[in-house]
Amino acid sequence: MNRHEQEVIVDASALQTVCSQLYQKVGVAKSDADTVAELQVLMDLRGVHSHATRAVPGYVRGIINGGINPTPELEVLEDNPASVLLDGDQGLGHLVSVRAMNLAIEKAKSASIGVAIVRNSNHFGAASSHAIRATEHDMIGFATTNGLGVNVAVHGARSTSIGNNAFSYAIPAGEEPPIVLDMACGAAAAGRIGTARLYQEKIPLGWALDADGNETDDPSKVAAILPAAGPKGSALAIVMDVLCGPLSGGLMGINKHYQPGDAPREKRVSSHFFFAINIASFTAIEEFKAEIDRQIRITRQAIPRSGFTRVTLPGEIESELTQERRANGIPLHREPVQTLEELADELDVEIPWVRQ
Amino acid sequence: MNRHEQEVIVDASALQTVCSQLYQKVGVAKSDADTVAELQVLMDLRGVHSHATRAVPGYVRGIINGGINPTPELEVLEDNPASVLLDGDQGLGHLVSVRAMNLAIEKAKSASIGVAIVRNSNHFGAASSHAIRATEHDMIGFATTNGLGVNVAVHGARSTSIGNNAFSYAIPAGEEPPIVLDMACGAAAAGRIGTARLYQEKIPLGWALDADGNETDDPSKVAAILPAAGPKGSALAIVMDVLCGPLSGGLMGINKHYQPGDAPREKRVSSHFFFAINIASFTAIEEFKAEIDRQIRITRQAIPRSGFTRVTLPGEIESELTQERRANGIPLHREPVQTLEELADELDVEIPWVRQ
Repeated sequence: MNRHEQEVIVDASALQTVCSQLYQKVGVAKSDADTVAELQVLMDLRGVHSHATRAVPGYVRGIINGGINPTPELEVLEDNPASVLLDGDQGLGHLVSVRAMNLAIEKAKSASIGVAIVRNSNHFGAASSHAIRATEHDMIGFATTNGLGVNVAVHGARSTSIGNNAFSYAIPAGEEPPIVLDMACGAAAAGRIGTARLYQEKIPLGWALDADGNETDDPSKVAAILPAAGPKGSALAIVMDVLCGPLSGGLMGINKHYQPGDAPREKRVSSHFFFAINIASFTAIEEFKAEIDRQIRITRQAIPRSGFTRVTLPGEIESELTQERRANGIPLHREPVQTLEELADELDVEIPWVRQ
Repeated sequence: MNRHEQEVIVDASALQTVCSQLYQKVGVAKSDADTVAELQVLMDLRGVHSHATRAVPGYVRGIINGGINPTPELEVLEDNPASVLLDGDQGLGHLVSVRAMNLAIEKAKSASIGVAIVRNSNHFGAASSHAIRATEHDMIGFATTNGLGVNVAVHGARSTSIGNNAFSYAIPAGEEPPIVLDMACGAAAAGRIGTARLYQEKIPLGWALDADGNETDDPSKVAAILPAAGPKGSALAIVMDVLCGPLSGGLMGINKHYQPGDAPREKRVSSHFFFAINIASFTAIEEFKAEIDRQIRITRQAIPRSGFTRVTLPGEIESELTQERRANGIPLHREPVQTLEELADELDVEIPWVRQ
């Protein structure tokens, strides 16, 4: 069965309405539910399905089960002119992160740079969801996260000892769309391997090892994800874990997982690190943006190598895809759509699209 | 000829004395010359010869030719509680960077985080030389740089449009050595390709393209370095260029190179970005260090994959090599040692080792 036959086309705003209503049904305030649903649908629009509405049922069940707080009140634990340490109140990670990034941006307005570190949060979706918000304030944004458990083998290892921590930098341009780096430190995000499993496709060799420590192209046999570029991705995964875990008074991913039960919950769950740089504190914003535009245009003019038809900037294809999908709908795999429909039935939310 | 036959063993402190004297002969103050020589010899000790004393003749000639200022006076262009923008006075990059990182560390002491951005500098050596200094103050350090010109093809391109910008994170541990990430965003540093050329060795496929756009294993045929992990290294190279160039009021690497001659010099030369995070502003330093030690020990216990005998942390092999070479001397390729000896003759500096 090819990709197309496994998919259904869903309208972006219908999808957003359903997701928002699901969150509202489990106690998230309407404006908060809209915010989270918008961030998740945006990732479907950008083609990053691993961090999009496919994850909504998991978050909603997390709220139902009490693991995720739908109405978090962020607590300020440390406050400095240029930084803040927050307790996320076990909140829905997207909500916690939007508020934390806003604080980093506020700090940067007055202090030129702003850092917000959060502990006791939950999965925050795509790192770029949060980094990109800084660009709306003419700032450079950075976001990273760690979580519970480990799925990446550090360079040279076949057993896992680090999380597949992701991070994003977002840089505002002038007339061009922002430059958006969003990468897992592993060779691929776990969600991308999940996508291959869903579509029953193979994964490239070099992404993962099986239980015997051999490279595998079968997404159902992945026992350890390999680090991107060997020692480089491996070291980056460790750094991101440190910025989020130990720096927030918490633990590295592996210790969140294995720590005896006496470690308090807030040390064991997701933590995040956000950073905003106020460009105007260092240089004229128009001059900065003009130089970014110039680089973008030069990069697009680079000669493609064999196997490529064009050269694009980080985030450019996702930006184009967003426009196309907003107009024509989002192709989603039927299976997660059905899961969403079942959850909607359970919570009495109307599905506005034709079921398959 | 094997590696060994092409090498000479040089004592670290003798090497440092010679390098310091060379700098002093061209006008660098003794304490500054000692500082720069120490940082460069340290890279030879760590096995990072691409950013070590092999580069000394280039720096010394840069000073003689007037391109590099041996006695820079850093000018503060913007001053905020948590950040500073500096003009490097066309200074020797190592010296400028040591002072800038010190300022970032000072800022972080009072403001919890500190950023120092420098324009109008020169090549600063290895990024880790500067990031690691933060760890001596119980801080996390970050350093990156951009330079003139481009040698990396962005993802999907065969022509070059970005510099092989490097960056480093350094994280203090407790009883263990610091964790030190130091990476070029390209698949390999240009200096590592230079090393292969020097020893007449092949490079792995996947590092570089030749002039026809084909992957090459011949270090003398490299026309473009490929980005590490494709789109990931490519995007990181762009981000590092932005943090140094446009954010300091300067230019991206490619525009430094091609900009018409009317762009002022300070926009065209190397710029740097330094960042220090004061751990004690966010959590108890002893608890932080204990968690880093724990991660280091867990990582070392990971099961090696086929082809590896042990699993190490970023910077660990370099740290071991440093101890071994301090005791037994540093193996250096004869060719750059001869170049150094010739420069010493020219500047009337005594060579304390037996010439080959």
